[in-house]
Amino acid sequence: MKIALAQISTHIANFDLNKAKIIRYIKEAEGQQSELIVFPELSVCGYPPGDFLGFDSFIDECEAAVREIASHCIKIGAIVGAPYRNTRGKGKKLFNAAYFLHNGTIEKVVFKSLLPNYDIFDEYRYFEPNIEFRILPFKGHRIALTICEDIWNIYTPFYTFTPMDELIKQQPDLMINISASPFSYNHKQKREEVLKKNAMKYRLPVMLVNQTGAQTDIIFDGGSTVIGPNGNIIGQLELFNEDMRYFELKEMMTSDSVQEEILPISKTELIYRALLLGIRDYFGKLGLQKAIIGLSGGIDSAVVLVLLQQALGKENVKALLLPSMFSSEHSITDAVELAKNLGVAYEIIRISEVFGQFEESLEPYFKGTEFNIAEENLQSRIRATLLMAFSNKFGHVLINTSNKSEMSVGYGTLYGDMCGGLSVLGDLYKTEIYQLADFFNKNEVVIPRNIIEKAPSAELKPDQKDTDSLPPYDVLDPILYQYIDLQVSAPEIIALGFDAEIVNRVIRMVNANEFKRFQAPPVLRVSDKAFGIGRRMPIVAKY
Amino acid sequence: MKIALAQISTHIANFDLNKAKIIRYIKEAEGQQSELIVFPELSVCGYPPGDFLGFDSFIDECEAAVREIASHCIKIGAIVGAPYRNTRGKGKKLFNAAYFLHNGTIEKVVFKSLLPNYDIFDEYRYFEPNIEFRILPFKGHRIALTICEDIWNIYTPFYTFTPMDELIKQQPDLMINISASPFSYNHKQKREEVLKKNAMKYRLPVMLVNQTGAQTDIIFDGGSTVIGPNGNIIGQLELFNEDMRYFELKEMMTSDSVQEEILPISKTELIYRALLLGIRDYFGKLGLQKAIIGLSGGIDSAVVLVLLQQALGKENVKALLLPSMFSSEHSITDAVELAKNLGVAYEIIRISEVFGQFEESLEPYFKGTEFNIAEENLQSRIRATLLMAFSNKFGHVLINTSNKSEMSVGYGTLYGDMCGGLSVLGDLYKTEIYQLADFFNKNEVVIPRNIIEKAPSAELKPDQKDTDSLPPYDVLDPILYQYIDLQVSAPEIIALGFDAEIVNRVIRMVNANEFKRFQAPPVLRVSDKAFGIGRRMPIVAKY
Repeated sequence: MKIALAQISTHIANFDLNKAKIIRYIKEAEGQQSELIVFPELSVCGYPPGDFLGFDSFIDECEAAVREIASHCIKIGAIVGAPYRNTRGKGKKLFNAAYFLHNGTIEKVVFKSLLPNYDIFDEYRYFEPNIEFRILPFKGHRIALTICEDIWNIYTPFYTFTPMDELIKQQPDLMINISASPFSYNHKQKREEVLKKNAMKYRLPVMLVNQTGAQTDIIFDGGSTVIGPNGNIIGQLELFNEDMRYFELKEMMTSDSVQEEILPISKTELIYRALLLGIRDYFGKLGLQKAIIGLSGGIDSAVVLVLLQQALGKENVKALLLPSMFSSEHSITDAVELAKNLGVAYEIIRISEVFGQFEESLEPYFKGTEFNIAEENLQSRIRATLLMAFSNKFGHVLINTSNKSEMSVGYGTLYGDMCGGLSVLGDLYKTEIYQLADFFNKNEVVIPRNIIEKAPSAELKPDQKDTDSLPPYDVLDPILYQYIDLQVSAPEIIALGFDAEIVNRVIRMVNANEFKRFQAPPVLRVSDKAFGIGRRMPIVAKY
Repeated sequence: MKIALAQISTHIANFDLNKAKIIRYIKEAEGQQSELIVFPELSVCGYPPGDFLGFDSFIDECEAAVREIASHCIKIGAIVGAPYRNTRGKGKKLFNAAYFLHNGTIEKVVFKSLLPNYDIFDEYRYFEPNIEFRILPFKGHRIALTICEDIWNIYTPFYTFTPMDELIKQQPDLMINISASPFSYNHKQKREEVLKKNAMKYRLPVMLVNQTGAQTDIIFDGGSTVIGPNGNIIGQLELFNEDMRYFELKEMMTSDSVQEEILPISKTELIYRALLLGIRDYFGKLGLQKAIIGLSGGIDSAVVLVLLQQALGKENVKALLLPSMFSSEHSITDAVELAKNLGVAYEIIRISEVFGQFEESLEPYFKGTEFNIAEENLQSRIRATLLMAFSNKFGHVLINTSNKSEMSVGYGTLYGDMCGGLSVLGDLYKTEIYQLADFFNKNEVVIPRNIIEKAPSAELKPDQKDTDSLPPYDVLDPILYQYIDLQVSAPEIIALGFDAEIVNRVIRMVNANEFKRFQAPPVLRVSDKAFGIGRRMPIVAKY
């Protein structure tokens, strides 16, 4: 039996697009004499659909789309993902389902048993878990069909039972898993390990088809994988792209020696490719073309500019240089050099006149007070206001340039540099951003050396340096990684050898700035723990 | 047996405060010869603790606090709520537990079975559901002890089983439910119905103790209630305040005729009291005193100013009047009159000079373009920048004045009038805000009539009216209520008799503005469906 894995990119709630794409792939696979084609989890409506699932008409549209797709599956069988109404009269209203389409109809439906409800996942919000297990028989084969998380209980016992332990009793000869498994720089490897463990535990080949494409902040990397019963990788589909590949079941079952070589890919390159996809899909799916950023001469906006230029094309990117009286001359020359290297249009608008006018308006109230955070933030907010004026006038989307280090400790101005429709680097610590810069400069100097080498500064007062307020990033970032990414508490972080006073100060800063992050833009998620829906901390609490 | 219901307000993660308060109430109840005292759900750490539950040290602190509280329960028994570690080696790491403390120790622990995971609730994110049921025996009585949602399956069959159906088999003589049941203007009545249904179904008295106080956006209204086996209300504790009351079990079991009169309270008054509590606890728990708002002369900022003045005291509130060249003279005079009525300090800062300076800086790029949304939003962002300058200079918290109607359709400026640390009216439709204004003016004119009677306007261009861009609020709000609060789809809304073209346009506007709401402040929740964590819609989707 020739099986096609169709690793598609979906657009949430765009039924026409998703349906047409699925039908097109079905026709193509049928043309290649495939007997079965497999699409990702919730491929009909896109994953994650969020509270759309609460609207009756949305479920109606899912059902209509599945029926229409089924009408195209006469000879070929297809597995697609969509919600399914729970008609049992109790429990949640929906199941997360895999539909098996054949003979022009819905021949069987399998429900997801293990519903992820941690980090970015909210599946128990919508779905009732399955507790009945049945094999999918097709063309003399017995397929153990599962959905994403169903096969992950092999990694940590997060759930009280393991669906494959039930299904294996019915003697399947193949495992198929339809997934929407989000990218993080660790996740590709974890996914492969999970698949290998499953294949070897159950002595079966396993085929996983993953979604690709980004849904706002959540990036799906594809990398659909087929593993033989001995844990050998039989094939892997492209990363970060739509892809379809065919596999012969007989070969999968017997080819213990087949091993496709998977080229190693560095963490930085994975992140780079993920961010490009995240930017492209944000613009593409919203039907937008043009981006604008404030280019400060610092490393963060420099790296964002390179990414935007590569993702959207230089003609679609605009940079504003917005120096204040505290901006160093090299900030401007460095930023100009970068913009020229990239062929990106830029304008220089000095903000001192507007700043002066604000000072004049505020003088009756502020006189006698010292220059402080109010005047620092004022500069940042003037910049945001100018950028948003361009955005509103010409339709550029303002892209945010905050990094995870500064978002963590609140070293940024709310309604100032924290503005933007999308945060590109908000899940990268400062030290990781330097790695990206080096990656860009591998073959030629794209980002001027001076931008990389100078000490980071917000330049909001004379001779300011980030280290005036923060520990050096090579001290700060590892502490943040422990606290935020790994959820390690202060005492354990200190026990790792970090300075107690610094650890406590850093964690205080992180906790005290929940209110700022609450209003931050969506952050392209590249780690296992990004700010946003994946991290839910109270604002009003005692820390 | 004399039982005390201790309806306390907790502060998330503030173990010292919560613990001291619980011990103080225990001493007080003991002094009154109570044999049992009952505290709300997760009372030791505060509800909802969010991702704090992922930190080992947080759970350690919960456990230590419970042990310390237990050491004060020698003769008296106490029921407190706290997380409990799951040591079974599979499933989620925690249970949501009710600890029974007596003889100086933890004598029994009962786990929550039904974990709410909809709207604002994320309990399945943290907790493993209980599936084993045991009665709590105490002083010759048999108590069916449950936690909040456990008794709610009587209302809609949201879950596949009903804990009380299991517990009733063990012949309890009393139901006790510890809750953290959030306020909405419908919820008090629903809670009473649920309690009555339970009491009458199981022919038992039921005691529910609820948390009071606000946790950022989520307000808990207390109103702990005791119901007799015939569904009669035996007693109800205060709304929106800490309270403790004592009940004699024998009387509860026999007093079918006892019926405490519950004074009716209007929707508007409930909302008013909830908002006051929401504001007070936001400031109180963050250790802040002073608020600032932009006072436009319109109804929204007027209502917010009244609430702030009442919640914080007039000496802690400051209003900035920030007229532009498009502000009508009556906007200023109305706002001044209101501020004087309330005894609140105000300043008038005209923004036309700053606006002019922005225009001058932008002139090289904007020349030849028409005045449009860019110039409109610019005014709003200048105001926000001035307000935030005051906030940063003097420590006032900027309070947001957006309403639910404009937040729904995106009729507001991101980084402009959408700014603020807390949104007071973001869960109230415009028509509900007029009801609040009338409520304030019941006995004397607090809000000048002109503010209430004039046509709403953003005053960002000459002679602008809200109705230039939006349907009248008495048309708009009912459509929004259907779509947002009730999750009714467009076809069904139209079937209710609303104009199809308007419905479709309104829903398009709602959906197109998810990106704005994503960056909005936390909204004090007063309805069953507020913007924020309780409504999770994708930003990038096809609508």
